[in-house]
Amino acid sequence: MALSPAFLSELERIVGSSGVVSTAEGRMVYEADMHTFYKGAPDFVVLPETTREVAEVVRLCRREHVAVVPRGSGTGLIGGAMATVGGVMVSMTRMNNILDLDFPNRCATVQPGLINLWLSQATRAQGYYFAPDPSSQMVSSIGGNASTNAGGPHCLKYGITVNHVLGLEVVTGAGEILRVGGKAQDPPGYDLTGALVGAEGTLGLLTAITVRLLHVPAAVKTLLASFSAIEDASEAVSAIVAAGIVPAALEMIDETFVKAINEGVGAGYPKGAGAVLLIELDGPAAEIEAQAVRIVQICRDHAALEIRVARDEAERALLWKGRKEAAGAVGRMSATWILQDAVVPRSRLPEIMREVVAIGARHRLVIANVFHAGDGNLHPMILYDDRVPGELDRAHDANDELLRACLAMGGSVTGEHGVGLDKAWSMPLQFGDADLAFMARFRRAFDPDGIMNPGKLLPSHPACGEGFRPAASKLPAGTWV
Amino acid sequence: MALSPAFLSELERIVGSSGVVSTAEGRMVYEADMHTFYKGAPDFVVLPETTREVAEVVRLCRREHVAVVPRGSGTGLIGGAMATVGGVMVSMTRMNNILDLDFPNRCATVQPGLINLWLSQATRAQGYYFAPDPSSQMVSSIGGNASTNAGGPHCLKYGITVNHVLGLEVVTGAGEILRVGGKAQDPPGYDLTGALVGAEGTLGLLTAITVRLLHVPAAVKTLLASFSAIEDASEAVSAIVAAGIVPAALEMIDETFVKAINEGVGAGYPKGAGAVLLIELDGPAAEIEAQAVRIVQICRDHAALEIRVARDEAERALLWKGRKEAAGAVGRMSATWILQDAVVPRSRLPEIMREVVAIGARHRLVIANVFHAGDGNLHPMILYDDRVPGELDRAHDANDELLRACLAMGGSVTGEHGVGLDKAWSMPLQFGDADLAFMARFRRAFDPDGIMNPGKLLPSHPACGEGFRPAASKLPAGTWV
Repeated sequence: MALSPAFLSELERIVGSSGVVSTAEGRMVYEADMHTFYKGAPDFVVLPETTREVAEVVRLCRREHVAVVPRGSGTGLIGGAMATVGGVMVSMTRMNNILDLDFPNRCATVQPGLINLWLSQATRAQGYYFAPDPSSQMVSSIGGNASTNAGGPHCLKYGITVNHVLGLEVVTGAGEILRVGGKAQDPPGYDLTGALVGAEGTLGLLTAITVRLLHVPAAVKTLLASFSAIEDASEAVSAIVAAGIVPAALEMIDETFVKAINEGVGAGYPKGAGAVLLIELDGPAAEIEAQAVRIVQICRDHAALEIRVARDEAERALLWKGRKEAAGAVGRMSATWILQDAVVPRSRLPEIMREVVAIGARHRLVIANVFHAGDGNLHPMILYDDRVPGELDRAHDANDELLRACLAMGGSVTGEHGVGLDKAWSMPLQFGDADLAFMARFRRAFDPDGIMNPGKLLPSHPACGEGFRPAASKLPAGTWV
Repeated sequence: MALSPAFLSELERIVGSSGVVSTAEGRMVYEADMHTFYKGAPDFVVLPETTREVAEVVRLCRREHVAVVPRGSGTGLIGGAMATVGGVMVSMTRMNNILDLDFPNRCATVQPGLINLWLSQATRAQGYYFAPDPSSQMVSSIGGNASTNAGGPHCLKYGITVNHVLGLEVVTGAGEILRVGGKAQDPPGYDLTGALVGAEGTLGLLTAITVRLLHVPAAVKTLLASFSAIEDASEAVSAIVAAGIVPAALEMIDETFVKAINEGVGAGYPKGAGAVLLIELDGPAAEIEAQAVRIVQICRDHAALEIRVARDEAERALLWKGRKEAAGAVGRMSATWILQDAVVPRSRLPEIMREVVAIGARHRLVIANVFHAGDGNLHPMILYDDRVPGELDRAHDANDELLRACLAMGGSVTGEHGVGLDKAWSMPLQFGDADLAFMARFRRAFDPDGIMNPGKLLPSHPACGEGFRPAASKLPAGTWV
């Protein structure tokens, strides 16, 4: 689709000429998100500064039946923020202000382009922070976090993004400006906040987000436990959760990752460990001391080889450094891999880990695992060498089997990354025809003409039809799981 | 509307003849919920036992364009579970089984007719409970709790019903059976759980509900602090919350209620107190000890007259007895009253309490206050004598002013009770035309023919048009706020 010069003029009238990217070079910058396999440049990129501008752009696109593709920082991993069929990309990078800090009501209202970490930095002096912390939090935007319902290491205790969004301002696909939710608990009418969080821009564009602020915890304690077998570590995770302890973070790092981290990052994780658990507790000092004693005992009961407790902030930072740079470290071992993001009920964790090992063996592939163990969200990385004939196909087959194994255990096709373009094909594996037909009808209530982020989330687009397969990732080293 | 004998035969074919109430006497039992002012008997009441039966009833009603009115235990306070325009009432009392208890994943799946308290009773031996505890929990159903997104004293710390619902099975107004959410966190696709919780049966009927189970807390501590003025008590509430303490419950009881409780219930609350705070802490013993010390100090700083700490379970039960029987106790003072249910951001609590006092003085009416102070959810009870000419009108005016005062402070027209028929007229006070038009379009995505609980939630029904006013309650003593 080539849009007319008149259309460009109308865009420039709305956002100003400095607010439109229309050159071929400029548009190429926006042709993909971090799932770089999928490429598709928009016809124009607009950089609005106000909600009114966003609404005007959507109304124009609706009139002309042009696709609208929202984009935050472009760090998504599922091909959600790229233009499948051209159209207008709405980049939120200029809408990055904090609109309101309301400490008595423990909440903040921000524009969607605000970088996640900036909000915690802006509130730390007053003793508050924003809890959801995807590993990309230094660069990803709160609008993008909300659109994908992002998770993160500390979401085990504090919940995922949706649990921290109190209200939204949204421009629907019909060009209306709606306000849903708000500072008061339990607003009347339909609670649309939950449906809009995680909708991946298929219902509308988030233009303001009211989020919960939490008090910075009184104390933090970080432990690292190593095990000879990942099954033992998995059983320890289940035992910790079953004991009623909710750590702030409970991260699993497998043998492949431990090796990669020690070689690439130098975090000094225990050599020869088959698996490492990184456990963080936070809260009142007395409470976390008691919990730490209990966790050490549970790890010992599950044959832990070694248990380290960080004595100070420097040691804590070193323990986390390994985890945070894990994906980059493995990227040094293998330039090509497929990153899976699936979920099982957490009680099935030991079982799915055995299955991951079996699938890897069956397809003669290394599958590296680093993930948020406490909430059952897996991120197996299937390493392959694209110079070896047939290995990419085997990697795809292993990836499919992994997803189906998670679903067979009552899990889900995606955890924190989202559906996007990458997983739209897999939605029918989890949902029946009636569910999908209903979701499409639901989507039309927001977006009557089907202009919002077409091809994403639901298997409605030809690109997501039968025969479409998830593609291999070629992420640069240093990206985030 | 009188439905034909053929229609009755079809209903009996679906649910059996013992599953249909069709006599005039039988139908009268279902003519109102606990907001007894609104009356409207359904043409038939059906008592299905399975989801399939529910779906068949809805499909039949859709074919014949007959209203469908869902009903749990009928303890709602907003005229939500009565038949505004006749039709078929679907009573969930026979669908009251626990379908699944999954302790490793800390959740249970129940049918909608299950009584709230029964779930905690069924899981207590294993150390679990269901946290949302509306004061009606001995008789209200989990389906009804979910449909109104019920609150309760312990929802300050643990969140309201929506925070405890993980997944739903729902029969939409189109007669489809959908499953939304589930045991795994962050399912893909649109998160419709939040929109269906609190939808008051206007989108469909909930037929199975997967809820979170919590571990029974290690220890509990209950305090009662009395103050000479309600403003001091309100300031103490704000100070407790600002100190980062989240009590399990934080209930405010005003002078009128303290007197009524002492006379009617004999709970022995401090005589002459202008306000009493009932504060409950739960969690690890060390943590709540430290919090209790802090709270005592805060109450002293706000001129508390007396602070009692329950020494044992018997004393704790006595402190709670007053609160739990508060509405009934005031019912003894005045047979006629209007019960308001509105919300302000909790930081505005001292301000709204001053306004409540001013409104009562202006209209020469006693307004009694007992409410969940921690989350800003007010329940002013406006006492009036309907034998005094003009007093009902003054009560209505006071009620309107209260609602508008809450809205002016950024609050909401309803907290935990819902909108129902009673507050549909007030939705335009909080929402703009675009928001309401959107909600109606959203509703049609679930209920294309407008058969689900007509006249409720949105001001679309003639009964909720201009000039319609909320009506005086004549609740029997012993009911719940």
